[in-house]
Amino acid sequence: MHPFDQAIHLTATSLGIYQGHTSSAYANLVGPYGGVTCAVMLNAVLQHPDRIGMPVALTVNFAAAVADGPFTVTARAVRTNRSTQHWVMEASQASGVVTLATALFATRRETWSATETHAPQGMPLPESMARRSTRKQPAWVQQYDMRFTQGDVFSAFDGQERADSKSSQWLRDDPPRSLDFASLASMSDCFFPRIFLRRRRLTPIGSVSITTYFHADEAALAAQGERYLIGTARGQKFHKGFFDQSGEMWSHDGHLLATTHQTVYYKD
Amino acid sequence: MHPFDQAIHLTATSLGIYQGHTSSAYANLVGPYGGVTCAVMLNAVLQHPDRIGMPVALTVNFAAAVADGPFTVTARAVRTNRSTQHWVMEASQASGVVTLATALFATRRETWSATETHAPQGMPLPESMARRSTRKQPAWVQQYDMRFTQGDVFSAFDGQERADSKSSQWLRDDPPRSLDFASLASMSDCFFPRIFLRRRRLTPIGSVSITTYFHADEAALAAQGERYLIGTARGQKFHKGFFDQSGEMWSHDGHLLATTHQTVYYKD
Repeated sequence: MHPFDQAIHLTATSLGIYQGHTSSAYANLVGPYGGVTCAVMLNAVLQHPDRIGMPVALTVNFAAAVADGPFTVTARAVRTNRSTQHWVMEASQASGVVTLATALFATRRETWSATETHAPQGMPLPESMARRSTRKQPAWVQQYDMRFTQGDVFSAFDGQERADSKSSQWLRDDPPRSLDFASLASMSDCFFPRIFLRRRRLTPIGSVSITTYFHADEAALAAQGERYLIGTARGQKFHKGFFDQSGEMWSHDGHLLATTHQTVYYKD
Repeated sequence: MHPFDQAIHLTATSLGIYQGHTSSAYANLVGPYGGVTCAVMLNAVLQHPDRIGMPVALTVNFAAAVADGPFTVTARAVRTNRSTQHWVMEASQASGVVTLATALFATRRETWSATETHAPQGMPLPESMARRSTRKQPAWVQQYDMRFTQGDVFSAFDGQERADSKSSQWLRDDPPRSLDFASLASMSDCFFPRIFLRRRRLTPIGSVSITTYFHADEAALAAQGERYLIGTARGQKFHKGFFDQSGEMWSHDGHLLATTHQTVYYKD
């Protein structure tokens, strides 16, 4: 079993109630990598027998630090319409609720389509680039093969403040794994805190809420397969303890698969 | 009482349970304007005696059409930490849950600050511009004084597709009202559906999920007062029945007060 599948594995104990366990492979400095938590919350709906359609929007609120060990996830469809369905999910441990999430699922059909944002231009092929070092990094970073063309946060922690926090990178699972909704949800949280890029030094931070909009359907995921994705991100405003950042996930051949936004606590 | 205060008025019937009523002043084509629904959901937390701090993130999922008439709102703090608090809110009518929302509240303190996005440059003063017509528009549009410098959606519904859906505008309540968190939440949903701007014709649409990040604290809101705000928005991807759009809310003097993102259903 791929370590990612192991990390997001849930065992249903009754309708909409699951048992899971954190994975040391995706450990962060404190608790698990937030992206895997997003994937776990989404997975609770993906596995639910009442689920219709595919994910369109996912919001995950990191309510408290997740302790290493077991957790319980509940998923409840609060409203099912003809082609859309609204879910609320909670993960709990002995300390109480640790993660709170909502999701919109929908059946999707062909319509007029257009992409208004632009994929980064002139990215060299990932095979021609060096993989970023994962030396001294948390375990989860080692689960992703990342190759940066811009904004590799750890390349120079020289404390020299920069005017922007933009980054562009290739990424894929290591070992490779075919893209699906759960891994796309997880990868959407791969962007290092923008404040590290702005200030070029470590700062105490913690993501508190992330929202991802899925543009990919099953066919787009299958077309991507195990190939490298492109991820881009930028900060918006850093103010009084919180900043927000936005990212885009592009397929290897320039299709926008997801857009993602989050607000992050910081102290400095 | 200002019509906005009337529209978001909630009467607590017990701890965390409120009664509200839709307002004809903020009616949309079907049910109430989504921005007022956002403000109502936020208000349920703002009025809650257990609330700490101020809103940092708000996600509102429009689960079903809200019928004109009374509704019940519940607000529950799922987790209270030292300086952050996570909430889940639901609005219900006879048909079941119509709105599902989550919020992050926090106490905020001084830190290093920076704004990475840029306010629109060269906006003429609102007093020098004409107010957009509200003729034949839903009631809620009349509650906002909007003055566009770019992308007034209804100015030319000629069916000639455009390459982008960017808009820039001034806006404020009509009659004027001092900005607060509830009205900022409401204004964050003021941006007309980007597909109208792209295709320049009416299309059946419905916002399904909106997330707003608040950068303003009470002092920034007080400094803004009744003045015009600047709002900018753009689309990202339109695909298989859903598109996403992002917006920024700027103070009259160039401070970023909120960033906002939503996904919208469309049929065409």
